[in-house]
Amino acid sequence: MNTWPMNTWYVAARSDEVAAAPLGRTICGERMVFYRDQDHRAVALEDFCPHRGAPLSLGKVSDGKLVCGYHGLTMGCDGRAASMPGQRVRGFPPVKAYPAVERYGFIWVWPGDPAQADPATLPNLIWGDHPDWAYGGGLYHIKCNFRLMIDNLMDLTHETYIHADSIGQKEIDEAPVATRLEDDEAITERYMSDIQAPPFWQMALRENGLADDVPVDRWQICRFSPPSHVMIEVGVAHAGHGGYNAPDGVKAASIVVDFITPESETSHWYFWGMARRFKPDDAGLTDRIREGQGKIFSEDMEMLERQQDNLTANPGRNLLKLNIDAGGVHARRIIDRLIRMELVGGDAA
Amino acid sequence: MNTWPMNTWYVAARSDEVAAAPLGRTICGERMVFYRDQDHRAVALEDFCPHRGAPLSLGKVSDGKLVCGYHGLTMGCDGRAASMPGQRVRGFPPVKAYPAVERYGFIWVWPGDPAQADPATLPNLIWGDHPDWAYGGGLYHIKCNFRLMIDNLMDLTHETYIHADSIGQKEIDEAPVATRLEDDEAITERYMSDIQAPPFWQMALRENGLADDVPVDRWQICRFSPPSHVMIEVGVAHAGHGGYNAPDGVKAASIVVDFITPESETSHWYFWGMARRFKPDDAGLTDRIREGQGKIFSEDMEMLERQQDNLTANPGRNLLKLNIDAGGVHARRIIDRLIRMELVGGDAA
Amino acid sequence: MNTWPMNTWYVAARSDEVAAAPLGRTICGERMVFYRDQDHRAVALEDFCPHRGAPLSLGKVSDGKLVCGYHGLTMGCDGRAASMPGQRVRGFPPVKAYPAVERYGFIWVWPGDPAQADPATLPNLIWGDHPDWAYGGGLYHIKCNFRLMIDNLMDLTHETYIHADSIGQKEIDEAPVATRLEDDEAITERYMSDIQAPPFWQMALRENGLADDVPVDRWQICRFSPPSHVMIEVGVAHAGHGGYNAPDGVKAASIVVDFITPESETSHWYFWGMARRFKPDDAGLTDRIREGQGKIFSEDMEMLERQQDNLTANPGRNLLKLNIDAGGVHARRIIDRLIRMELVGGDAA
Repeated sequence: MNTWPMNTWYVAARSDEVAAAPLGRTICGERMVFYRDQDHRAVALEDFCPHRGAPLSLGKVSDGKLVCGYHGLTMGCDGRAASMPGQRVRGFPPVKAYPAVERYGFIWVWPGDPAQADPATLPNLIWGDHPDWAYGGGLYHIKCNFRLMIDNLMDLTHETYIHADSIGQKEIDEAPVATRLEDDEAITERYMSDIQAPPFWQMALRENGLADDVPVDRWQICRFSPPSHVMIEVGVAHAGHGGYNAPDGVKAASIVVDFITPESETSHWYFWGMARRFKPDDAGLTDRIREGQGKIFSEDMEMLERQQDNLTANPGRNLLKLNIDAGGVHARRIIDRLIRMELVGGDAA
Repeated sequence: MNTWPMNTWYVAARSDEVAAAPLGRTICGERMVFYRDQDHRAVALEDFCPHRGAPLSLGKVSDGKLVCGYHGLTMGCDGRAASMPGQRVRGFPPVKAYPAVERYGFIWVWPGDPAQADPATLPNLIWGDHPDWAYGGGLYHIKCNFRLMIDNLMDLTHETYIHADSIGQKEIDEAPVATRLEDDEAITERYMSDIQAPPFWQMALRENGLADDVPVDRWQICRFSPPSHVMIEVGVAHAGHGGYNAPDGVKAASIVVDFITPESETSHWYFWGMARRFKPDDAGLTDRIREGQGKIFSEDMEMLERQQDNLTANPGRNLLKLNIDAGGVHARRIIDRLIRMELVGGDAA
Repeated sequence: MNTWPMNTWYVAARSDEVAAAPLGRTICGERMVFYRDQDHRAVALEDFCPHRGAPLSLGKVSDGKLVCGYHGLTMGCDGRAASMPGQRVRGFPPVKAYPAVERYGFIWVWPGDPAQADPATLPNLIWGDHPDWAYGGGLYHIKCNFRLMIDNLMDLTHETYIHADSIGQKEIDEAPVATRLEDDEAITERYMSDIQAPPFWQMALRENGLADDVPVDRWQICRFSPPSHVMIEVGVAHAGHGGYNAPDGVKAASIVVDFITPESETSHWYFWGMARRFKPDDAGLTDRIREGQGKIFSEDMEMLERQQDNLTANPGRNLLKLNIDAGGVHARRIIDRLIRMELVGGDAA
């Protein structure tokens, strides 16, 4: 039994990771190789040459076809051998071909039943291809179950402790948190009024040409959507102008973008980033935000990996589900429901 | 079934290791966190936050209470949650609190049933807090079962081979060894007469203002006491003055102090050191001895870890029990008896 | 059940690896220690001191006897304890003594039943001690089953892909391959006519004082012999002079020498080298060839180790057996037959 949904789209790679050389990466326990065909379309195959089991990701792409680096078997994008020097390949067993789509600067892959894959069910991301928005981000490989990262992002009180020097502040702890379900999404939100902006947001205010030393209203709206995406609307506005609803001229706002893709039971790929609707053409700003965010998110890694280690050493031990954990709890329920639906053959979309 | 006694005191840390930052360390298979409360008293708790399983050792101590570094749960020294921002903690499940005592410059911990813990059963160490004595030492983490280290220390013929350049000499091999039991202790002793002092002891003679190039009598009295302490009275005296019983003016003598604390079946914490009754106020001498001893004891590590590796690869293979091994054999019997007594509920003290 | 023959000779070490210090090495799952006795003869014992299980390879050789580095037990070359300070050793349990023979610059060992070991069954290597020949080579430790290396060497089409810059060329793929059995040997051969020599062979032509820019005939004759040796006759001759049978004056020819010794199910020792019948006294040439060959063979390592990793993750998955794989398929059958014969007690020689 898989412990993650299979019949759904996951982010497998950033677009720029899949270039001339094939990329090997395990997604949801499936060893995959990613490359581009002659039309520059992303292809995902099982990373296993049907000839002798060599990893295809050690090969190279020639005329849009993946050639095994061991004995030259050339794969078709459908997972069937296309040719091999001096051989007839018609009877060769195929390898898995995973539906793959490129959108919003990412390669999305469907690790489960290809017949059920429908690009129309990809998430609709307003910032993904809109000229008013800019995105920057990175990728971390983290040795913990993907649920622990979802928990992390759906309960931002940890910012007070782990990120005390950048985005944490005591008021996060003190602000009441509200969690609700909207269809298949879990939403957790927190609003703080008339507080001092922490260092990261002071920087953002300055980048927006706003005073960084005046009281602000701050918000955090975490939105989990299946299978494992967490988008967090975050921002500050000069106090008293409506907070989240304040006009653009007095606020700095953005969306923390988190695609959390299982690798194994105890590891995942963490695609983190930030989408912003101000100064979208300022590449230097994108770099500075990426650098700051990358540093912040790296602070979570030791905690998450050691938490996984502790849980592995204490199997079956119950964890608490407090009100601050409600977002993660709801997200896990949604994930578990999707897994159960796949088991009984239902539609997981 | 544990393969070490649990209802007994082990050295868990040097006093100076438990300071401002909490210390995570596994003792007898139990993941523990050590810190100091407001009265500077050492506390040992299970290293597992009851909230989400984060290691408490990644947190920090605030006003003598341990605050989890993930979401701010504050632990009481009794293993019960004391407070958490915005939460009532009364119903939170407790974690284990281990009896801990600070004495002789070490933190001692009782990994078993807390109800049986009695500080009166701590060993009585004459050198531990006496102004005539000085102690210096260090800590090694060694990847072998703690019994192999006890064997090592209860049979010093290995000095001839492993420590040939410092304390080893052919005469150790040639001197007869006597082993006896005293209550719960195993004692192995060896006396050499009219020999040349090896380099380490020449240094000690010089530090005592004694000639280092004259014949000496040398002694080694290894004393195992449960659960896993080995104290070795060692020394040399100018030959013909009574050896072990010679007056202080013609000898250099000290106690090799070894606390051997299980971590897992195949690893342990080795607290090594030397207590001496000469020049107790000479801190420079303490440092020089520590440096020399640390180098000597590091020579055992590869042998012990590779021996463990060999034994793991050859389970069930019988080892020889020669007369030189009698000390280790007796020590293992005492350990096994303590384990059995715990199994039937007897008093292990 | 072993997955390799045990009652046969394997190369365990190069002669120059077994010198003053004993050498520990696992051969066919057996932890062995190699050293030389007083007559400079190679000895192979189980790397396990019968006293306390210390690895004998941490000891030293004294007067041709191996002395354990822990407590001084001295081993005889027959695996029986010879002496120990202050001990009678007659009753000590012996450790295994493995038949060992030095020949052709290698130490050969028989990991199975010593009673069946017969040096007369060592392979007869014409280049091994003939003044017209020179040999140079090296050793790689590779984390894959030894069969994958045999496959690799019995199907040289991989040269086109893995060694494209040195010995690979498109014509290898295009040349028909013929495989046959000769007694207990599997032979795979390939002949190419009137082609351009690849860089490695251009170098070899130049070293022979021959033009390197004229068309050549090229041959590859791979010969597997049990348990796991692959000798490959390789060479080029100026085109039209008879190829493999051309006179010495127009060709550069040599034997690629591969001894492939299992360590564990997923690792082996790869003794690679080249024997040549030209300029046998040119040590500089030997070095240059070794360097070139070492670089070429290192290119296979990532592929082989990742192939093993892929196969371990996909147990039971069938691989293809194409005509190019016939050499490896035959070799595996011979190996399997030897293993079965050992199981029923037959003669495996």
